[in-house]
Amino acid sequence: MNVGTIHGVGLGPGDPDLMSLRAHRLLTGARHIAYFRKAGRTGQARAIIDGLVHPDAIEFAMEYPVTTEIPVTDPRYNEILSRFYAECAAHLRALATRGEDVIVLSEGDPFFYGSFMHLYTRLKDDVPVQVVPAITGMSAAWTATGSPVTWGDDVLTVLMGTLSAADLTDRMKTTDALVVMKIGRNIEKVRAALEASGKYEDAWLIEYASMPGQTVQRLSDAEGRVTPYFSIIVVHGQGRRP
Amino acid sequence: MNVGTIHGVGLGPGDPDLMSLRAHRLLTGARHIAYFRKAGRTGQARAIIDGLVHPDAIEFAMEYPVTTEIPVTDPRYNEILSRFYAECAAHLRALATRGEDVIVLSEGDPFFYGSFMHLYTRLKDDVPVQVVPAITGMSAAWTATGSPVTWGDDVLTVLMGTLSAADLTDRMKTTDALVVMKIGRNIEKVRAALEASGKYEDAWLIEYASMPGQTVQRLSDAEGRVTPYFSIIVVHGQGRRP
Repeated sequence: MNVGTIHGVGLGPGDPDLMSLRAHRLLTGARHIAYFRKAGRTGQARAIIDGLVHPDAIEFAMEYPVTTEIPVTDPRYNEILSRFYAECAAHLRALATRGEDVIVLSEGDPFFYGSFMHLYTRLKDDVPVQVVPAITGMSAAWTATGSPVTWGDDVLTVLMGTLSAADLTDRMKTTDALVVMKIGRNIEKVRAALEASGKYEDAWLIEYASMPGQTVQRLSDAEGRVTPYFSIIVVHGQGRRP
Repeated sequence: MNVGTIHGVGLGPGDPDLMSLRAHRLLTGARHIAYFRKAGRTGQARAIIDGLVHPDAIEFAMEYPVTTEIPVTDPRYNEILSRFYAECAAHLRALATRGEDVIVLSEGDPFFYGSFMHLYTRLKDDVPVQVVPAITGMSAAWTATGSPVTWGDDVLTVLMGTLSAADLTDRMKTTDALVVMKIGRNIEKVRAALEASGKYEDAWLIEYASMPGQTVQRLSDAEGRVTPYFSIIVVHGQGRRP
């Protein structure tokens, strides 16, 4: 019996029209589709492909056992997530071993801060795994602002809002163009770091880039608003241009 | 008469199968297609869409008046390029004004170090301009390495090989994950900066990512080889993972 392939398929930023031809072809032809989601939710990845899935496709929803109940610094967090990823990988490995191809959905680009990476490292030595890159959420975010993000020799730095205030500030100070992701509950720390680094007035907040609820505003106009997880902050580079 | 729209369409890293559904639809239906190229060459963007263009489409090849004959620091460089972009923009503006939609091809993502940005800033206040984001060359490059580029809180820094040796070294030292583009004739400077920053042994060189001639190797195994323009260096982050 042939061994199946696990495809980690990047769906892009959220608009199904921004999916690659390859991702679309793999998805519409898939017999097994797996995706992460919060317990009890549809899941963003699954929502993106709504209407594209073959009616006979078998879905495998991988529901996170924790989200924010346990801090990431707690050793139990790693332990629980590690067991969860191992169990998901075991299920996918078993499918591939008995000859089934499986599509694992990934928001954005799978190898860029993606959850699929945790399955990838657990599967790649055992069964064939293919990865389809995709448009990142940050590309959709800077496109939505209507201004190019990097010119000439501009340095681009991508930061997670989960970094310390000092780290954020130091790195914001020294870059030309900036992207901040994983903002959520870190918004006040990120805002303070942008102010301390002199970039607050030039920061744009993009929510739900390329999705139906997309908003684009200066961060300074979004005072006091709680931003959801699908928020990205962009500061444009101002490098040389003829 | 209606005014036409100029579409800056990102083609992605090079493999036509990695084009977005939207890009593909716009391209195959286009009556006017414009693209940059070196004089006398097919042009990389035009090569990507070979076979997809409607037989009746009218093509507008925008041939760079200079490439490397004049250093970018020479004031004439800016002057010549500025006039060139203005002339290209005038042609596209005229087409849109008389009601024609025009597709302008862009390798990679249009707003990420893309040539289309120079037309965009000259056109956006006069005629409707739409931008279609795309998979970046760096996404294809790190996907080709078979290892995720960023984990957890990793900081990603994107550097151009055209920066000074000191700038390159300083920024390489302080980042977790690293991408270096515009390598070409800067390869020895980039190599020295990677060595000085302690990242040389972990650097991967990807040539022609996602294209037929794709190669992936450790930079240290590529000693003495001249690398072409379509080369990207990647150093993977090693952030936390359960």
